[in-house]
Amino acid sequence: MPLSQTSYGKSRIRLVQVSRRGDRHDLRDLTVAVRFEGEYDTSYTEGDNRDVLPTDTMKNTVYALAARDKVREPESFATTLGRHFLDRNPRLHRTSIDITAHGWGHIPVGDREHGQAFVRRGPDTRTARVITDRQRSDVVAGVADLVILKSSHSAFAGFPRDEFTTLPETHDRLLATSLTSTWRYRDEEVDFGPSWRAVRAALLESFANHDSLSVQHTLHAMGQAVLDTVDAVESIALEMPNRHHLPVDLSRFGLENRNEIFVATEEPHGLITATLSR
Amino acid sequence: MPLSQTSYGKSRIRLVQVSRRGDRHDLRDLTVAVRFEGEYDTSYTEGDNRDVLPTDTMKNTVYALAARDKVREPESFATTLGRHFLDRNPRLHRTSIDITAHGWGHIPVGDREHGQAFVRRGPDTRTARVITDRQRSDVVAGVADLVILKSSHSAFAGFPRDEFTTLPETHDRLLATSLTSTWRYRDEEVDFGPSWRAVRAALLESFANHDSLSVQHTLHAMGQAVLDTVDAVESIALEMPNRHHLPVDLSRFGLENRNEIFVATEEPHGLITATLSR
Amino acid sequence: MPLSQTSYGKSRIRLVQVSRRGDRHDLRDLTVAVRFEGEYDTSYTEGDNRDVLPTDTMKNTVYALAARDKVREPESFATTLGRHFLDRNPRLHRTSIDITAHGWGHIPVGDREHGQAFVRRGPDTRTARVITDRQRSDVVAGVADLVILKSSHSAFAGFPRDEFTTLPETHDRLLATSLTSTWRYRDEEVDFGPSWRAVRAALLESFANHDSLSVQHTLHAMGQAVLDTVDAVESIALEMPNRHHLPVDLSRFGLENRNEIFVATEEPHGLITATLSR
Amino acid sequence: MPLSQTSYGKSRIRLVQVSRRGDRHDLRDLTVAVRFEGEYDTSYTEGDNRDVLPTDTMKNTVYALAARDKVREPESFATTLGRHFLDRNPRLHRTSIDITAHGWGHIPVGDREHGQAFVRRGPDTRTARVITDRQRSDVVAGVADLVILKSSHSAFAGFPRDEFTTLPETHDRLLATSLTSTWRYRDEEVDFGPSWRAVRAALLESFANHDSLSVQHTLHAMGQAVLDTVDAVESIALEMPNRHHLPVDLSRFGLENRNEIFVATEEPHGLITATLSR
Repeated sequence: MPLSQTSYGKSRIRLVQVSRRGDRHDLRDLTVAVRFEGEYDTSYTEGDNRDVLPTDTMKNTVYALAARDKVREPESFATTLGRHFLDRNPRLHRTSIDITAHGWGHIPVGDREHGQAFVRRGPDTRTARVITDRQRSDVVAGVADLVILKSSHSAFAGFPRDEFTTLPETHDRLLATSLTSTWRYRDEEVDFGPSWRAVRAALLESFANHDSLSVQHTLHAMGQAVLDTVDAVESIALEMPNRHHLPVDLSRFGLENRNEIFVATEEPHGLITATLSR
Repeated sequence: MPLSQTSYGKSRIRLVQVSRRGDRHDLRDLTVAVRFEGEYDTSYTEGDNRDVLPTDTMKNTVYALAARDKVREPESFATTLGRHFLDRNPRLHRTSIDITAHGWGHIPVGDREHGQAFVRRGPDTRTARVITDRQRSDVVAGVADLVILKSSHSAFAGFPRDEFTTLPETHDRLLATSLTSTWRYRDEEVDFGPSWRAVRAALLESFANHDSLSVQHTLHAMGQAVLDTVDAVESIALEMPNRHHLPVDLSRFGLENRNEIFVATEEPHGLITATLSR
Repeated sequence: MPLSQTSYGKSRIRLVQVSRRGDRHDLRDLTVAVRFEGEYDTSYTEGDNRDVLPTDTMKNTVYALAARDKVREPESFATTLGRHFLDRNPRLHRTSIDITAHGWGHIPVGDREHGQAFVRRGPDTRTARVITDRQRSDVVAGVADLVILKSSHSAFAGFPRDEFTTLPETHDRLLATSLTSTWRYRDEEVDFGPSWRAVRAALLESFANHDSLSVQHTLHAMGQAVLDTVDAVESIALEMPNRHHLPVDLSRFGLENRNEIFVATEEPHGLITATLSR
Repeated sequence: MPLSQTSYGKSRIRLVQVSRRGDRHDLRDLTVAVRFEGEYDTSYTEGDNRDVLPTDTMKNTVYALAARDKVREPESFATTLGRHFLDRNPRLHRTSIDITAHGWGHIPVGDREHGQAFVRRGPDTRTARVITDRQRSDVVAGVADLVILKSSHSAFAGFPRDEFTTLPETHDRLLATSLTSTWRYRDEEVDFGPSWRAVRAALLESFANHDSLSVQHTLHAMGQAVLDTVDAVESIALEMPNRHHLPVDLSRFGLENRNEIFVATEEPHGLITATLSR
């Protein structure tokens, strides 16, 4: 029986690193997944484990390399991990390292920040996926669960109707989504922190400023804004669920809904995706 | 068969209200639960629905009163809802209205905020519970899922040991929790918005500044800080899971862990609670 | 500042015990929470840990006592744990032990069961809460997340209407809920396994057989059925969210909905509770 | 900017269908997602909605076709939906219909089953994905969240060690996973219900009977068992997280752990995947 698409690894490795510079501490809070692809067929067919580095060792390696090198940007740490594993495992063809970075801010005390106390920021997280083989690394950064809403300049009209279509046209609706986006950098020499912040800002600003004719339309404008403003990005994928906010029919109670009162729903939801490349 | 502790109501009513003042919109995003307690025994024993206001009507009422009165503070809106239901339902003794307010901020565009575009802030939420009977309302505000962490000034030592005790003493650990706290106001005349912000700030600051000998010790300091600084609060309950961050034993790899590398865990967790009153 | 309702403990202790009798293994899969209440005020006010048994020790004790005594019924194991802690901790007044037992069945192979391979059964779980003080133990068993649905013999009509009421009366609706129920046994001498199974069967059968005029009506019939058939039960509490299944209006498409096509919803939901006692 | 991988659709459409044959009712409880791929670029670039069938209409169509044709097997219903959409939308190239079927059993009452009352079975669900273009349909069935455990005949040894390897070899461990598997049928003429049950049985039996040298080894044996016993299956993909059950070190308490007491963990976990084809 031909075997294909084999992979094995360790997921949900939780790593918190504290960096102490005097009274000012920094925090890296990561969830890491390691995945190996290579010549491991006999481990499946024969139970031959001679070349199967334990996933427990992958986990230990994440902690050890964090201690040795200190985690700075998720993208760099993922690249370091991938190369480490490739150097030592001859049957390994390719590693995929996925990192989710959970955001924390320093707690404000009076008019300054406390150096050693933190409050979690969210719900959005920063993500990185680095795929490394014996030639190169492919670095993809991203943002997940960035929940955003527009209360004006959003329409949906001019669509086709069939016998199952009941949706009214609208020229002023609420548009809300929980954005997941990933973008590929042109190489590994990118300054990952500033680039990530520039992409996130471009996504937010273009969403806010867009005169939206549909989710598709706004998604495209957001992707284009990123490609226009951040040179290091080669392509960007966006996934935007349409979290419908339905106006409540208050006329049943003798009241008027001046586009103010909505039911927020999670299910069902639209789901719009696209990738833009240079 | 004696019947007791009967209640019925509607939960997870999702309400989003947009207030438009020119170009500047405001957003209220609430999850509301309504609960009735009263003389409804025959609805259970006989299926007699004559006095059973449908929970669907409770939901409609939430939307209608939001439209009529506009939601300002969750505590006030909950009080209004409770009184409305008590006025119209003679067999109703007591209402309990629970509100979770989900936070949103305006999206920054350049150096100002966009008036009509929003980004969700979290994971912490603002909560309110108002219990109203024919005499009075009992107003309890709160915060949920406020995830906070101290990277210094946290110890746990001097505890008793038995034959199952393996925990080492520590004088410098990470202390992390996801705080849930609720506080009772002395009456309904409180200025709910500023009071809520003052309590949240007192919780964060006292957590940051405390020289912690245990979670219990810090919990008490946080409660005391709130009673010391916000007069309108009569009592405060705190619930603090101890989200253990375990130092990784790097000596197995010939490395030293200078209190920098931790495994964040969710399970098992400690759980510490207390209520402080004036 | 008076301190009240203090408690501390360990939650989400995960314990799996395998009992081997020849080729036939048995599995106990529990999530345990331990909670202490007692004279621990100085641990809060002073950070005095002299009497604070670490929650890590509570966790270790759960594993040690499971090894020493073998877990049989969750209720008995919880009772054993409570007494152990009370015997050794003089400032402890009361323990509360909560257990959720996750169900597993043996995997069928051909026409028999494999003795050493298991498949998880759910989503419902078995629960136990035992509160022990220096006099006695209070034993409460339960079931959680028992998702049930009736496709006939469920009505809701005859209810009052106000200006916000739009719900139509119905004499044939789908009734679905996710039942959580807890029942108090008259003492600790109950045969916990058979009693639990008898209560669960009575809940299911009475739900199936009831001619329902409302959720309240069916909830009451279910509680009564338990008190009628299981002598060891002194009182029973039931909590039944009304997971609305809304008939789809197919007339908009020129089709008829003969009470066959429904949208299952989770939000908002009704929530009905009551306690029945002898 | 070149646009690629565009898709749009509706997710989490919840459909419950009751089929009434006298006193015996049947229940279909599905979560459906519809995805369109085609020539929709101008909807992104221009906001031109002329060909954009609303996702709300997709949802209505799911309900309408369920009413018209009655849902039997998820695979057939998905195929019907795909063809319907392709017939009416000239710019549509390909539909992807994903269905999760939630399991229900009739409630037992005495020694028979009640015809009109149901209890949810899980946590495992049945899945189907049908991708249809203007030539053909590709039918993939599956099972998700099938949680299984072996308490014997599971080893992991003979693996390589490096300076970060601390895992001991084991010849008798607990092996637990939450299986997700999908398999492609050779064509659309398969008898989907019996085939699905045959695959599920083959997965369970081979897992139970296997003498496991690793998760990889057992995963392969399970895939092979399916290909050996169900002719209609052309290929099968399996994804098996390794939900580690760690033996508790009781020697610290002067007790022996005879491979009986384990901590069940969810995080971190191994993750093993492969696809087997004829």
